[in-house]
Amino acid sequence: MSKTAELAGKLAALNFADMYNNDFYWTWDKTDDEISAVFQVADALRDLRERGKSTRIFDSGLGISIFRDNSTRTRFSFASACNLLGLEVQDLDEKKSQIAHGETVRETANMVSFMADVIGIRDDMFIGEGHKYQKTFMDAVTKGNADGILEQKPTLVNLQCDVDHPTQCMADMDSIIHHFGGVENLRGKKVAMTWAYSPSYGKPLSVPQGVIGLFTRFGMDVVLAHPEGYDVMSDVEEVAKKNAAASGGSFRKVNSMEEAFEDADIVYPKSWAPYVAMEQRTKLYQAGDQAGIDALEQELLANNAKFKNWSCTEEMMARTKGGKALYMHCLPADITGLSCKEGEVDNSVFDRYIDDLYKEASFKPYIIAAMIFLAKVKDPVAALRELDAQAGPRVRF
Amino acid sequence: MSKTAELAGKLAALNFADMYNNDFYWTWDKTDDEISAVFQVADALRDLRERGKSTRIFDSGLGISIFRDNSTRTRFSFASACNLLGLEVQDLDEKKSQIAHGETVRETANMVSFMADVIGIRDDMFIGEGHKYQKTFMDAVTKGNADGILEQKPTLVNLQCDVDHPTQCMADMDSIIHHFGGVENLRGKKVAMTWAYSPSYGKPLSVPQGVIGLFTRFGMDVVLAHPEGYDVMSDVEEVAKKNAAASGGSFRKVNSMEEAFEDADIVYPKSWAPYVAMEQRTKLYQAGDQAGIDALEQELLANNAKFKNWSCTEEMMARTKGGKALYMHCLPADITGLSCKEGEVDNSVFDRYIDDLYKEASFKPYIIAAMIFLAKVKDPVAALRELDAQAGPRVRF
Amino acid sequence: MSKTAELAGKLAALNFADMYNNDFYWTWDKTDDEISAVFQVADALRDLRERGKSTRIFDSGLGISIFRDNSTRTRFSFASACNLLGLEVQDLDEKKSQIAHGETVRETANMVSFMADVIGIRDDMFIGEGHKYQKTFMDAVTKGNADGILEQKPTLVNLQCDVDHPTQCMADMDSIIHHFGGVENLRGKKVAMTWAYSPSYGKPLSVPQGVIGLFTRFGMDVVLAHPEGYDVMSDVEEVAKKNAAASGGSFRKVNSMEEAFEDADIVYPKSWAPYVAMEQRTKLYQAGDQAGIDALEQELLANNAKFKNWSCTEEMMARTKGGKALYMHCLPADITGLSCKEGEVDNSVFDRYIDDLYKEASFKPYIIAAMIFLAKVKDPVAALRELDAQAGPRVRF
Repeated sequence: MSKTAELAGKLAALNFADMYNNDFYWTWDKTDDEISAVFQVADALRDLRERGKSTRIFDSGLGISIFRDNSTRTRFSFASACNLLGLEVQDLDEKKSQIAHGETVRETANMVSFMADVIGIRDDMFIGEGHKYQKTFMDAVTKGNADGILEQKPTLVNLQCDVDHPTQCMADMDSIIHHFGGVENLRGKKVAMTWAYSPSYGKPLSVPQGVIGLFTRFGMDVVLAHPEGYDVMSDVEEVAKKNAAASGGSFRKVNSMEEAFEDADIVYPKSWAPYVAMEQRTKLYQAGDQAGIDALEQELLANNAKFKNWSCTEEMMARTKGGKALYMHCLPADITGLSCKEGEVDNSVFDRYIDDLYKEASFKPYIIAAMIFLAKVKDPVAALRELDAQAGPRVRF
Repeated sequence: MSKTAELAGKLAALNFADMYNNDFYWTWDKTDDEISAVFQVADALRDLRERGKSTRIFDSGLGISIFRDNSTRTRFSFASACNLLGLEVQDLDEKKSQIAHGETVRETANMVSFMADVIGIRDDMFIGEGHKYQKTFMDAVTKGNADGILEQKPTLVNLQCDVDHPTQCMADMDSIIHHFGGVENLRGKKVAMTWAYSPSYGKPLSVPQGVIGLFTRFGMDVVLAHPEGYDVMSDVEEVAKKNAAASGGSFRKVNSMEEAFEDADIVYPKSWAPYVAMEQRTKLYQAGDQAGIDALEQELLANNAKFKNWSCTEEMMARTKGGKALYMHCLPADITGLSCKEGEVDNSVFDRYIDDLYKEASFKPYIIAAMIFLAKVKDPVAALRELDAQAGPRVRF
Repeated sequence: MSKTAELAGKLAALNFADMYNNDFYWTWDKTDDEISAVFQVADALRDLRERGKSTRIFDSGLGISIFRDNSTRTRFSFASACNLLGLEVQDLDEKKSQIAHGETVRETANMVSFMADVIGIRDDMFIGEGHKYQKTFMDAVTKGNADGILEQKPTLVNLQCDVDHPTQCMADMDSIIHHFGGVENLRGKKVAMTWAYSPSYGKPLSVPQGVIGLFTRFGMDVVLAHPEGYDVMSDVEEVAKKNAAASGGSFRKVNSMEEAFEDADIVYPKSWAPYVAMEQRTKLYQAGDQAGIDALEQELLANNAKFKNWSCTEEMMARTKGGKALYMHCLPADITGLSCKEGEVDNSVFDRYIDDLYKEASFKPYIIAAMIFLAKVKDPVAALRELDAQAGPRVRF
């Protein structure tokens, strides 16, 4: 039996009916079965691709991408996922558009979605804004479809908002599952999601939030570590607590990187900005107070600089389980001595894990494709089986 | 019988042979049959799409887009139309290209058209320039094909020039036909194409010109209203007069918004710049006289401000037939109290017509696709019948 | 027998096995058989296209383009070639990406190549940099594939580096072969690859280098002419000498445009910057010495201006074989009296050769497609025969 056939079998045992025609905002909106379904489909699509089989399920169709912040990895992952399934990407570049001050999101949403199958949105810059934009957008196209304007309701794939970064964290998780040889081996593993120093300012919170909101579902012991004041959204901490209780794992917060790294199986050291400071920035931004924004930046940079010892050095890594924890990062990292003078991670550590890091990233296109597949295909189990049995080669000769 | 089969039957009764391998500059270049053919094909493609059938007629191929002015709606409509038929869009971004001062349009045209099936051009900024650019471009590729450089002559779809905006006005018209339940119900309907105040300056004339040049073909009573001095191109007024005479409708000009709205069935209030001022701007631009351009802008803004009462308020709407005329706009509109302090339309009016406005816009991708279809398919009637009977699903599972 | 069948027959007689899964950096990496194979496949793909047959060999897949310098011709050629074969282009726009200072090429390469079939890179701005970037990129993806990160090793098509411009020079050569009625007619033909005056500064050396590195393989007498000090890379001159010796042609250098044009069958007058000056610029650039760069520019412009008589005038053309040498240029040219006051070529000369020049350019998409075809298709001979016999129409109706 092929790997895809096996995965289709696993998928058949799950309840994921609600994913059809639905959106993907946050992992904690989804049931355990639904999360598992994404992994099964992602792995099956990867297996089919690696065997040279076509997984083109769309004869034509559009994936609209809206990147309100720069992106390389996610941009190319979205493009790859769309292409894998037969969709063409059309990017909404707000600079080249007529999106004037005052055009409503509702209007833009309908105007770019005439024939959209999928909408991928990155909007992670401002706390309280990113998710709101995505929700307003999707409410508009849902209404547009109901009112006969759009011939279908396109599906949202959240490519990062202010709250969660589900395609990243799901790719991270799929990578962990493969690294440890199966989801059943994760129970009791210790994960350190820790803040790390970076010379830059205001990195999004969506990765640490996404990680604690997802990783706590697998019976692991998840530790969130950061200097005092660098708290993440309390709502997401609540999600993590609930998840941990339900999965038989644990979730706790500490203010010491050393403590988090102690005996950890997995470490994820990464810079982010304090939630309260980001809230403050959003208000300054809304008030158009550029002087205030600049002052806040200086204050935050100065504060960051107090915590330069929060860095994933060789000494820090030595504290982990056998000194060999899996080092993770969403990339790009601030690498001490390579991309900056003092950063999140020692170059020697980063370099030792390069293959693991790139593999981690390589799951993202398949995760995105799986999210689209489950939202667009009526009977994904039958579809995978048919692709496995009958799909022609992707390259004809 | 399916709707598509019915539309194919209507199409079969029309003479549109000259559209094959031809270009679409202005609606008044086309016969009534040809205009009707576009509507039949657009509606058939929409029917097929809504029934989930693939309308992919190109196995591969390119639609080249050139936007010399910003665009969202038209950009996504063109991309959607191309994708619907199987073409990939390749955008010529003049900023990323080597199009240096001095490179001829003839050269650029050939260089980007090696494998182009369709060329979509928006060039609406300067009076006397937009159409000229399109014509020069198409002459070059026609010659390029004749000389063995290009393996085919690509087809032009005018995505807005200084004279006409045919994809917009045809979408507007198709929307009206559907709104009133058939083209046969339009005779005698009163249309008010009126100027409206906007705080911005220099909006293109192509929409009012396109509207009077097209809507006068359907036996309607078309009124063009604007403050003194805001005249459109006199050539297009001549077209409107001739059309009205031929169709049994009427065309007249007034200098009162109130008069135009009185008992109107359809109102299209929209800002534009005076034709003579735009001619003057083109000359200043050609002379590189930035100070002159700035002075002209101030003068025009000041003049606009005299006509703030030219606004589609609730009071104005109350004058229309039963107070319920169909309100139209090509979007985005300048909405009083939403996108600007004083603008083209009251927010309450705009908001009441949002569904109609978005529906109006939703016809554009199908209109563009129909223009391409009629230019590229040898036997469109047979093709529609075959698609209706045999086309597979657009989404495979 | 169709032209494609005939070309497939010629291809079958060549040894090009090493091209499979391989990259295309420089023409002189390739054997004569491999160079010939590209021409046979390019001509066959053109024949199939002109007969309306689909040459789509990819059901889905991505061609990644990276233009580190502006481009129109090559950008559209690459897009056309990809589309011809069924690949979608995804452009890496470094301005829209997170490619921060410090992100390694290795990382970027893997992150954009998750599902890439082809990588097209233009990087021609800095001597010693362009090829290095391409090589570093391809080493990274080769390793990424070996390490299980990428499911395939994508193929490089060099879209211009600091050393060679193979897609341009191969298109030039295919154009010459057609112009003279076959490769067998080229022996003994005199080619003048000459420097020409341009009011602009720092044009890449890759075209003259590519021309002497390729054209010397066909038994022609290749003359490289430039003012003293405008030398190209000596390594490439060595390649040219070796090629000429092997092919029974000749290669020599002169410092007189007149001498080069004398009795020439083909002339290729084009501006470039002196190699040593470009090396100097690279060092200034690496040192971040903007004042030094500006000073060098002034110096080079002043030096260029001494050689305004190096121009392809009517008088110069009169010296060529019967006054009728084939005039070539990679475009865009600096045309005296059209795009500049004094430039590379008289407008009357340029204008007389416009059809030839555009035809020359029209080979590039097919050359690129052939490079991809030979790298991606296991049995190109069988594939061409099957396409010839069985391929459906590109446009369905």
